[in-house]
Amino acid sequence: MKITSEPITIGIIGGGQLCRMMCEAASPLGFRVVFLDPTSSAPAESVAHKQITGDFDSAEDIQKLLDHADYLTYDIELADPDSIDALEPSVPVHPAPETLRMIQDKLNQKQQLKKRGIPVPDFVRVDSIDDLYEAQKQFGLPMMLKARMGGYDGRGNLFLDSEDDFEEALETLSTNAMVEELIDFDRELSIIGVKGTDGTEVFPVTETVHEEEILRHTITPARTTDEIKDRAREVARDVLEVMTGRGVYGIELFETDGKILVNEIAPRPHNSGHWTIEGAVTSQFEQHLRAVTGCPLGSTRLREPTVSVNILGDKGERPVSLEGIEALFETPDAHFHWYGKELERPLRKMGHFTVTGDDTEQVLNKALDLCGELSFKP
Amino acid sequence: MKITSEPITIGIIGGGQLCRMMCEAASPLGFRVVFLDPTSSAPAESVAHKQITGDFDSAEDIQKLLDHADYLTYDIELADPDSIDALEPSVPVHPAPETLRMIQDKLNQKQQLKKRGIPVPDFVRVDSIDDLYEAQKQFGLPMMLKARMGGYDGRGNLFLDSEDDFEEALETLSTNAMVEELIDFDRELSIIGVKGTDGTEVFPVTETVHEEEILRHTITPARTTDEIKDRAREVARDVLEVMTGRGVYGIELFETDGKILVNEIAPRPHNSGHWTIEGAVTSQFEQHLRAVTGCPLGSTRLREPTVSVNILGDKGERPVSLEGIEALFETPDAHFHWYGKELERPLRKMGHFTVTGDDTEQVLNKALDLCGELSFKP
Repeated sequence: MKITSEPITIGIIGGGQLCRMMCEAASPLGFRVVFLDPTSSAPAESVAHKQITGDFDSAEDIQKLLDHADYLTYDIELADPDSIDALEPSVPVHPAPETLRMIQDKLNQKQQLKKRGIPVPDFVRVDSIDDLYEAQKQFGLPMMLKARMGGYDGRGNLFLDSEDDFEEALETLSTNAMVEELIDFDRELSIIGVKGTDGTEVFPVTETVHEEEILRHTITPARTTDEIKDRAREVARDVLEVMTGRGVYGIELFETDGKILVNEIAPRPHNSGHWTIEGAVTSQFEQHLRAVTGCPLGSTRLREPTVSVNILGDKGERPVSLEGIEALFETPDAHFHWYGKELERPLRKMGHFTVTGDDTEQVLNKALDLCGELSFKP
Repeated sequence: MKITSEPITIGIIGGGQLCRMMCEAASPLGFRVVFLDPTSSAPAESVAHKQITGDFDSAEDIQKLLDHADYLTYDIELADPDSIDALEPSVPVHPAPETLRMIQDKLNQKQQLKKRGIPVPDFVRVDSIDDLYEAQKQFGLPMMLKARMGGYDGRGNLFLDSEDDFEEALETLSTNAMVEELIDFDRELSIIGVKGTDGTEVFPVTETVHEEEILRHTITPARTTDEIKDRAREVARDVLEVMTGRGVYGIELFETDGKILVNEIAPRPHNSGHWTIEGAVTSQFEQHLRAVTGCPLGSTRLREPTVSVNILGDKGERPVSLEGIEALFETPDAHFHWYGKELERPLRKMGHFTVTGDDTEQVLNKALDLCGELSFKP
């Protein structure tokens, strides 16, 4: 392992906030980032070495990115694995395109996990309305219909309350789908796992709180039993074994009746791991870069209980300003992260903040109070 | 206080490692950095929004920087205060050009501090060889001759052992100079202070270890008495009162016989404050940006005892590679920072690393062991 005067360049498909935070983590390591994104003012633009303006699924644009890169990775799972494979990149690509392919198709993701003995909610494939009636027999109503491809933050997921909804739901999705058992969970959990050259590491278990299927805040350590935490880490390690290629994986879990089920996996740093920037010895972003470049992994130790709160846009007008942040800046142990995005749609992730401290409940209360101070003004 | 979609741009004169680390701190706050530097591959280049290639003392180049900036600040004290004043900038400039002017002239710096009752070593102005003989009467030999302008990392400082050296020393400096009492210190200390809109804050006291007048490592908290630490903080607060303009100031101190004397002041983040990135709640770089932009200051609380070690070049050949860093990457609680510079001269600051932990002595020993593993190869 050598560090030279010639900087190592990380090529990243996607220039969103995850790429931005990878840039922040890359600089101390001596790395620089070139990214591919269709948006000219992508969040990573102000802190990356260079942007390639182009499409995630264009082989030509990905080749332009590869021309600048010593390693290739992603800030989104929408990168086209077939285009990457077709290019036969001469630089390491992590995670492997086959992992993207497996994860992009939610049905395939669940099938692969189940085949490897990893606990997941029950599911059935849905190609037609007849499959929906079959699913209804198995799961009853209400049930959750999920688009197999392209959904995130709840988009592509539909709750079906009655048979009357079936036809319209399939039309709305207009793609292959699956139905998944609705889990009456006690708690949602997340583990950031990382797969390096010399084995895997998992961060402490995080409790995640969603509303309208969008992550609102996380609490680390999760407020659950040690048995559940041990089991969650065990499942996360098993998940990492199924994945091909190095890097950070965001592993979302359900805790239900003392059991752990895998909800969904992201082959990249994940919103539920933003707390690691201030709360862990090594951030998930540094950890991802270490893994992708084949450096030894860093420590995943919790430094202090940490709550992370997403700052979500709540209005559609532009220009937008975020007000009420004085309290946040004035709070010791609070850290602000702004992504530099325009507010194009309601509930867009505009930034996040973390609060650290000795006592988890106090930290959570402080964080929620600070969140209550924030508001967007047109 | 508002955050908007339109990013705030910080203009920085100088694009060295301090600017680079300011860029790393700027991004989470939603700020972006444009910097002025004559070197095309300055350390900040890979992580800043934009570089203006030009000279620190060119009014024209500074104006180009101002054209992009909402605030102006520095990563070096070589910026020309007269050029800045002449431009009558329409954006806030922090610290004030008059502070640069006062600090750039080491004689003036000491005179101003002394006038305000701040304890400093004795000194005399030296314009001629006769002044050196006068100084010799006052201080005896050996004594320290210092160039008033432009010196740093020991450059511009000459030890005088005998009268035979006087003539050559003055020729070598070829500038106005001063002689300063040689302090037989027990310990060198440093405090990072910050001056905001609503008062000042100081970080915990750091112990600094120099060799050949170049900082080698820092230990925080300093291993000295509580009385000394309280007194050092008191002196640092007094120093901040003398400075005009917001921002971070690096305040280097001598501890001698239970007393504190001010050695030197830098009107910017300082090498002795790099430990704050991992060791304090708010880094000196974030703190500087908060101060310059008029945000509330962050917490200066120590998170854990922290040692920071400079990685100094020891060979002149290029290209250069740093070897032996596996141990550093494999050590939990060690953090690497690489500045992306070419090794142009011996002892150039190429990077640094920090180690954090519960026990100061253990952390120090671990850090020095890791330093021993590192070597540059041609």
